[in-house]
Amino acid sequence: MPQLRVALAQVNSTVGDISGNARSAVDWVRKAADAGAHVVVFPEMSLTGYPVEDLSLRETFAQASRQAVDDLALRLSEAGCGDILTYVGYLDRDQVGPRDAAAALYQGKVVARQYKHHLPNYGVFDEHRWYKAGETLDVVAFRGLEIGMVICEDIWQEGGPVSALGRAGVDLVVSPNASPYERSKDDIRLPLVARRAAEAGAPIVYTNLVGGQDDLVFDGDSIVVDEDGELLGRAPQFTEHLLVVDFDLPGSGQAAEGEFEGLQVRRRVASTDPAPAYEPLSEPPISEPLSEEAEVWSALVVGLRDYVHKNGFRSVIFGFSGGIDSAVAAALAVDALGADGVYGVSMPSKYSSEHSRSDAAELARRLGCHLRVEPVADMVDVYVKQLNLGGTGLAEENIQARARGMLLMALSNLEGHLVLATGNKTELAVGYSTIYGDAVGGFAPIKDVFKTHVWALARWRNAEAEKRGEVPPIPENSIIKPPSAELRPGQLDTDSLPPYALLDDILDDYVEGDRGYEDLLAAGFEAETIDRVIRMVDRAEYKRRQYPIGTKITFKAFGRDRRLPITSGWREGQQH
Amino acid sequence: MPQLRVALAQVNSTVGDISGNARSAVDWVRKAADAGAHVVVFPEMSLTGYPVEDLSLRETFAQASRQAVDDLALRLSEAGCGDILTYVGYLDRDQVGPRDAAAALYQGKVVARQYKHHLPNYGVFDEHRWYKAGETLDVVAFRGLEIGMVICEDIWQEGGPVSALGRAGVDLVVSPNASPYERSKDDIRLPLVARRAAEAGAPIVYTNLVGGQDDLVFDGDSIVVDEDGELLGRAPQFTEHLLVVDFDLPGSGQAAEGEFEGLQVRRRVASTDPAPAYEPLSEPPISEPLSEEAEVWSALVVGLRDYVHKNGFRSVIFGFSGGIDSAVAAALAVDALGADGVYGVSMPSKYSSEHSRSDAAELARRLGCHLRVEPVADMVDVYVKQLNLGGTGLAEENIQARARGMLLMALSNLEGHLVLATGNKTELAVGYSTIYGDAVGGFAPIKDVFKTHVWALARWRNAEAEKRGEVPPIPENSIIKPPSAELRPGQLDTDSLPPYALLDDILDDYVEGDRGYEDLLAAGFEAETIDRVIRMVDRAEYKRRQYPIGTKITFKAFGRDRRLPITSGWREGQQH
Repeated sequence: MPQLRVALAQVNSTVGDISGNARSAVDWVRKAADAGAHVVVFPEMSLTGYPVEDLSLRETFAQASRQAVDDLALRLSEAGCGDILTYVGYLDRDQVGPRDAAAALYQGKVVARQYKHHLPNYGVFDEHRWYKAGETLDVVAFRGLEIGMVICEDIWQEGGPVSALGRAGVDLVVSPNASPYERSKDDIRLPLVARRAAEAGAPIVYTNLVGGQDDLVFDGDSIVVDEDGELLGRAPQFTEHLLVVDFDLPGSGQAAEGEFEGLQVRRRVASTDPAPAYEPLSEPPISEPLSEEAEVWSALVVGLRDYVHKNGFRSVIFGFSGGIDSAVAAALAVDALGADGVYGVSMPSKYSSEHSRSDAAELARRLGCHLRVEPVADMVDVYVKQLNLGGTGLAEENIQARARGMLLMALSNLEGHLVLATGNKTELAVGYSTIYGDAVGGFAPIKDVFKTHVWALARWRNAEAEKRGEVPPIPENSIIKPPSAELRPGQLDTDSLPPYALLDDILDDYVEGDRGYEDLLAAGFEAETIDRVIRMVDRAEYKRRQYPIGTKITFKAFGRDRRLPITSGWREGQQH
Repeated sequence: MPQLRVALAQVNSTVGDISGNARSAVDWVRKAADAGAHVVVFPEMSLTGYPVEDLSLRETFAQASRQAVDDLALRLSEAGCGDILTYVGYLDRDQVGPRDAAAALYQGKVVARQYKHHLPNYGVFDEHRWYKAGETLDVVAFRGLEIGMVICEDIWQEGGPVSALGRAGVDLVVSPNASPYERSKDDIRLPLVARRAAEAGAPIVYTNLVGGQDDLVFDGDSIVVDEDGELLGRAPQFTEHLLVVDFDLPGSGQAAEGEFEGLQVRRRVASTDPAPAYEPLSEPPISEPLSEEAEVWSALVVGLRDYVHKNGFRSVIFGFSGGIDSAVAAALAVDALGADGVYGVSMPSKYSSEHSRSDAAELARRLGCHLRVEPVADMVDVYVKQLNLGGTGLAEENIQARARGMLLMALSNLEGHLVLATGNKTELAVGYSTIYGDAVGGFAPIKDVFKTHVWALARWRNAEAEKRGEVPPIPENSIIKPPSAELRPGQLDTDSLPPYALLDDILDDYVEGDRGYEDLLAAGFEAETIDRVIRMVDRAEYKRRQYPIGTKITFKAFGRDRRLPITSGWREGQQH
């Protein structure tokens, strides 16, 4: 029974930074060597990052990526890691076009290489645009075992590449992945990988990317299952990690070459000698999944941190209004960047309440972050007087929000912080925000979180702090006071919106669930409320596209990615 | 020899406005009836508009579209047009998924229906995301002739659906299209359609959509060729039109059913009686294509007009700086909306030259549009003093541009005009503009026009006016003076940028041509200049994605649509 030690390198790649990703790959393989591993498996497109979007179409980029794979094979050999069979994901390109590829490196050379077969083209994936599909599977003979590979989506297909490998006969399947986080996605992944292991008749090593990339977050959660679907190992979520697992495999003999399930299976020989016997690890390394709120909080923290750092910033600046949204954004930012990287600005106008200032100050005190006070009354005054905006309603309200956005951008220009927008998913969905005003910012950390969920996260984060004997970061008053934009005297969110609990329920069905008017009626909502919410959402959708605002509102990380036309006469339920 | 009169309804649909598009369809079929037509062919997706993007995935939208086709068949019949065989494009949906469909309506019913087979998935097209591919072709027997249909991209395939129809045996092929305008695209379309006619062994009726939809412009240019590829008719560009063409066809007998080129050909019978003999039209209706500059100008005018009107606006507002960009934007806007729909605002700061005011006034005088003067000195002053921005360079410069953007948005809120951004493609490509400043606006009419081309268009438009004995709209001084942003004393564009002629040359290769560093060197540009321009473009690309600005910068209508990651470590030529 050949033994084999496999390391899963759950890494945080940066899109386009081929040389940085390659340097990091050498470091991880060295660590794997120190851990005694014979095989290392990196995630999908680990050398280029994922998704590279239309960079995939750029020939010079594909050339650089191909070159980096050859160079990496040599560098690993030079670093004394040439005997480790290393699987890396990268962008390839041949006469057919760009390819989502993975290569197996051994003794300074590429010994096997294959292209992704199933190209997902929905939600955040546009792979029919980015790649051409592969039609071959390379099985590598290594130390007395036959190792097959499937790239990401290929593992989701019943009767696809995994089945082909099972029929060809392999001892182990490795799978590089770039599978973005969605709430409760780990409930889907493990049963899926277990089913596929049965189809392959072999254990599966599933390595996933980790970290934030633009509006996606990868959670890691790399797993290993045996041929019966039993969990042998699981990496922690939301952090880089080297997961090391030992196998003791039957070694079922040479894999067959030829066509299986419409795919060409080819056999490549790396080495034929079994590994010398060694003492396996005592404990299976199985990390516990995070609780639901901890998982979401971690995703938000990592998404924000990587957006800031990968774009070359060290600090962020945004308005501290005293309300719940900016308080949660601030707590997230401090968890992501440290208190010294967070610059709050309290920007009272003449309609701002006393508690908006005191709650902002209390927030900064609890977090230990920076805070300055910059009233916007004088800027607003000039506009109101010169353009006679007094009593004009919307025009006057918007000027306050825009004076604040302009102020934040000026401080960003002066001091080099990235501006954050603190809008939540509910207010963005119904358009309860000002274009070029509170929507100003390069990143919106809670854009994927409905308002009721913002409150829940605030309470959860405070409770966590109490458990640890720390000061709860979010002032209780910011959690309990009725939400208000404070752009006119006595204004409350409920003047313009249904109660948030009801509103979020409808949005969850209409925006997330893609349900229609009739479905919402059947779900028991009142016709009048449905009409009102649908009108707000559709108006906001199109308004947002007419005046694209300063944040990407794609609902990607936590739900659906909608791409809608700007101009549209379609209104859901208009026939009623 | 059966005679047949065919009308091509080159219509301007609005995405999502199914009921409006259906009402318009009835009007056009009535006009075709008045012209004695037996067949009417509408463009691809004429009932839903094109592209519907992710609306294609919404079940309620597909249901409404299917229903609209059935309703339209009845309404045409009630309107006395039931005997006209009417081809309409629409969104269908079956158990497989959404479909890019076209139906043939006759005597109150759908007599044939087929789904697009080849789904383009590049540039502005994402059809693998939006639709499932069809595998059938419906040939309609009508008045002694066999009529086949191919939808849009299906006509671009050698040995595809057109070839299948040729092998099955048809007398005529109708083709509904939604083919966006690109410069000189008509040089490609006619030879292509002529080649396909030879493959079909039959004439082709090619109806294209017309009008602006978001950042696309459809030019119409519908054409008819006989089986030898000879042009029988061509509709004018950029305007709705009913093109009527007479055929006198051999009537080669029943088309064969069965599988051809992997597609199932089915025969549907509408009517078997030949049309009564009639007197054909004397002249073949062939419109002359526009000159190159006239074509671009028309595309810009139509794109702007439809963006404004289809989004429910009647008027636009933007800064009149006295420079060439806002002058050309103003001339376009007046051509698109009339002088009364154009509101100029001169917004001098303390660095503005005297000629910036006088040239703006002269522009408004020539165009007869609205102009108001709103100095921004007071707004800028408050920021500069409160934040100590004096002498800070970029932060102080940006405040001026942002004060103007905020002012325009306030006037938009007050008076209901759409704000336009007047940046050209060169300055957007190299990032020579201020986020939330001059980039504020819902639409950027010259975003697809390089600076040198802006000057060429200005001279062309003035010359056209002189030919017609009208006042040239653009002041000569705006054309000849050296470009300046006027954000600091004595500033000139050439302080920060290479000369525009050189810059546009490099951008044309790098941005439009997607050429790499080595290609640019080989083309004879200096290494230092290439480095400089590439750095600016890449920085601007990523900056624009970090802070998405107030205009869609996709370069769609006139070139490539690039979708790049926000975060990226990739820099072209970084290896040098």
